[in-house]
Amino acid sequence: MTDLPPNKDESIVRYGVTKRWSDLVAYRGVAYFVEVPDDPTASAQTQFHQVLSQVDERLKLVGSDRAKLLSAMIYLPDPSDLPLFNSIWDDWVPQGHAPSRACVHTPLAATGYRVELVLTAACADPLP
Amino acid sequence: MTDLPPNKDESIVRYGVTKRWSDLVAYRGVAYFVEVPDDPTASAQTQFHQVLSQVDERLKLVGSDRAKLLSAMIYLPDPSDLPLFNSIWDDWVPQGHAPSRACVHTPLAATGYRVELVLTAACADPLP
Amino acid sequence: MTDLPPNKDESIVRYGVTKRWSDLVAYRGVAYFVEVPDDPTASAQTQFHQVLSQVDERLKLVGSDRAKLLSAMIYLPDPSDLPLFNSIWDDWVPQGHAPSRACVHTPLAATGYRVELVLTAACADPLP
Repeated sequence: MTDLPPNKDESIVRYGVTKRWSDLVAYRGVAYFVEVPDDPTASAQTQFHQVLSQVDERLKLVGSDRAKLLSAMIYLPDPSDLPLFNSIWDDWVPQGHAPSRACVHTPLAATGYRVELVLTAACADPLP
Repeated sequence: MTDLPPNKDESIVRYGVTKRWSDLVAYRGVAYFVEVPDDPTASAQTQFHQVLSQVDERLKLVGSDRAKLLSAMIYLPDPSDLPLFNSIWDDWVPQGHAPSRACVHTPLAATGYRVELVLTAACADPLP
Repeated sequence: MTDLPPNKDESIVRYGVTKRWSDLVAYRGVAYFVEVPDDPTASAQTQFHQVLSQVDERLKLVGSDRAKLLSAMIYLPDPSDLPLFNSIWDDWVPQGHAPSRACVHTPLAATGYRVELVLTAACADPLP
């Protein structure tokens, strides 16, 4: 998470903008964002809780929350992590508000991470 | 496919909502959904026809159809299935209405499945 | 890139439509598109420059440009290509306008390609 102020180009608002990516991009009521856990040296369990907390924090920035996720693409490099991830995910998703979801197993660009999430969510429009 | 009624939160409408995912999420005229074949024990050929039929059924729910797909991400775990998948796909896509499309080879979370589709489509707004 | 005129179905506009895919699909101010380098026999460096030039050309078609990317999913089959890709990407992305971005390593459907990009961007609405 970065503390940079959002950068508005026309109706596109970018949060946490770096040279390489933005932490979140909001446009016309949809937030596009990607999360990896803050600590890639932590256990799988800690990483899974961490990444979902980060999703909560990120969504707060755009007047949204975990009940407004539209789609979730889950990259789990280690297939044996799936049952643990699912149990933490199932507890986190608000009953009745689950997103569209797919999960595949593939190596991530950065090592150490046990999960990467590519997400879209409905967000405030106009933004707060 | 589930028979649960859609769950509306503000302008987000979710179909086939389970603890873990929704079969389809519709928001502002866009449907986000994921399909795996109903029968992971069937042959690749049967699975490919099956998954595309499921797409047709799913799109009907939201006043859409296969001519209104926007994007298709195709996960084919077995690279040797590609020519067969492509021939069935090419026959299924309505001439002149193909979506943006990418295909990669990666293991899926659930075993047995020969394909997983991550899709977006234009849908009715407001929904039927 | 194809020279076919765009095909409009309702508010969906498709560019470069083939039997299997469209080069770009625009709907409600969002462009959905996928790029692989034109020349899969070129070096990784050439392919990376090429694919990003193709993004520029493609976005021009819909009144958009690289500063309006919303999300980028990067498929790099060879993990050792990541530092080179990142250096070319970092130079290409306009300061302050980076998209949401994820990168994974997975075999692509077509051989020879060193990268495949799955992208969304804000585009003109109505289209030019």
